[in-house]
Amino acid sequence: MKLQVAIDRVTLDDAVKLTHELDGVVDIIELGTSLIKDYGLLALKDAPFNIHNSRVLYDLKTNDEGAYEFEKGFESNADILTVMAGSSLDTIKQVYDVTEKYNKEMLIDLLEVDNNKIKDITSFDNAIYGLHHSKDSKDSFDAVDTLDKFKKSFPEVKKIAVAGGIDLKQAKAISAQGIANTIIVGGKIVKTDNPVESAKQFMEAIK
Amino acid sequence: MKLQVAIDRVTLDDAVKLTHELDGVVDIIELGTSLIKDYGLLALKDAPFNIHNSRVLYDLKTNDEGAYEFEKGFESNADILTVMAGSSLDTIKQVYDVTEKYNKEMLIDLLEVDNNKIKDITSFDNAIYGLHHSKDSKDSFDAVDTLDKFKKSFPEVKKIAVAGGIDLKQAKAISAQGIANTIIVGGKIVKTDNPVESAKQFMEAIK
Repeated sequence: MKLQVAIDRVTLDDAVKLTHELDGVVDIIELGTSLIKDYGLLALKDAPFNIHNSRVLYDLKTNDEGAYEFEKGFESNADILTVMAGSSLDTIKQVYDVTEKYNKEMLIDLLEVDNNKIKDITSFDNAIYGLHHSKDSKDSFDAVDTLDKFKKSFPEVKKIAVAGGIDLKQAKAISAQGIANTIIVGGKIVKTDNPVESAKQFMEAIK
Repeated sequence: MKLQVAIDRVTLDDAVKLTHELDGVVDIIELGTSLIKDYGLLALKDAPFNIHNSRVLYDLKTNDEGAYEFEKGFESNADILTVMAGSSLDTIKQVYDVTEKYNKEMLIDLLEVDNNKIKDITSFDNAIYGLHHSKDSKDSFDAVDTLDKFKKSFPEVKKIAVAGGIDLKQAKAISAQGIANTIIVGGKIVKTDNPVESAKQFMEAIK
């Protein structure tokens, strides 16, 4: 299983610093939506991230104008980009085509969509499907149970990621369960006193 | 009825130039999602838009982390910000509270949501509800018919905007119908040889 660390709601300088620390420690470094909307893709492209040993995901959260956004994102050095599952099917098809053309990866963010919507979009073989509990939602989130139900409903989906307040204990349980390919962790690594040490603990937990 | 002109997929310099031309000619100038994701809110805040006679909407398309994004958006000089209707209810509540606190406005983008979702979110009295046909969608869009059906389903909604390839003829029909408060026009103004003249024709059409 892979560990993706989300860097969000920090300055660009702090994002660069954190990235240098985490490069090679974790599998995937996510530059969060807040960095894109605060600073823009052009600034992310020019910033001295110099990521060599991890892959980099930009949490672009495309809703529309798919081809335009994905081309800009991949041209700005992303390895993986995200699209909202709630977008039109044509948008998801567009970004999938762009992703294949660039030989990169995409994650379909399943935030707030129901199984009726999901069943229409499970045919994108190379896409990662991201189970995602809203940061703003006050409902509780049981990642293991959600993964179990998702796998039973959509056995055809090959690549699954999960996000939503995952701690070390949950990371171990998700790893033991063996359904998710990637866990996404934000604050529980990045907002600790020692992000590198916290990241190493998560990497150990999912070994 | 008001006219909102969407500026999208251009350079920041061209957006500034267009804005100077359209300031005061149209009611609302929209700086589109592409400008936010390409350049970032901080760049939009610092750019010499100097809009004095129109209001300005940033098409932020918030999906999550609502309070953070809306605070950043309003601090970056937006009068109106957008949130996706497909977000969690908690996200929409958060951005509504931030909007009220700043004494500004918000538009709930109804892209790709069905009536089941809409009925849960019609209680935000001061929000604008934006009927929005995906730019990427290959389906056709009848704005007058869509507005008619929406008004019958949700008579409680007070402020309605509509977007999706609207031309002069449709603008006249929407104005005559009297349901929408705002029409949003993009390429049919901005991508013409003379955006100011095109904008004036639309303003005349909806008088």
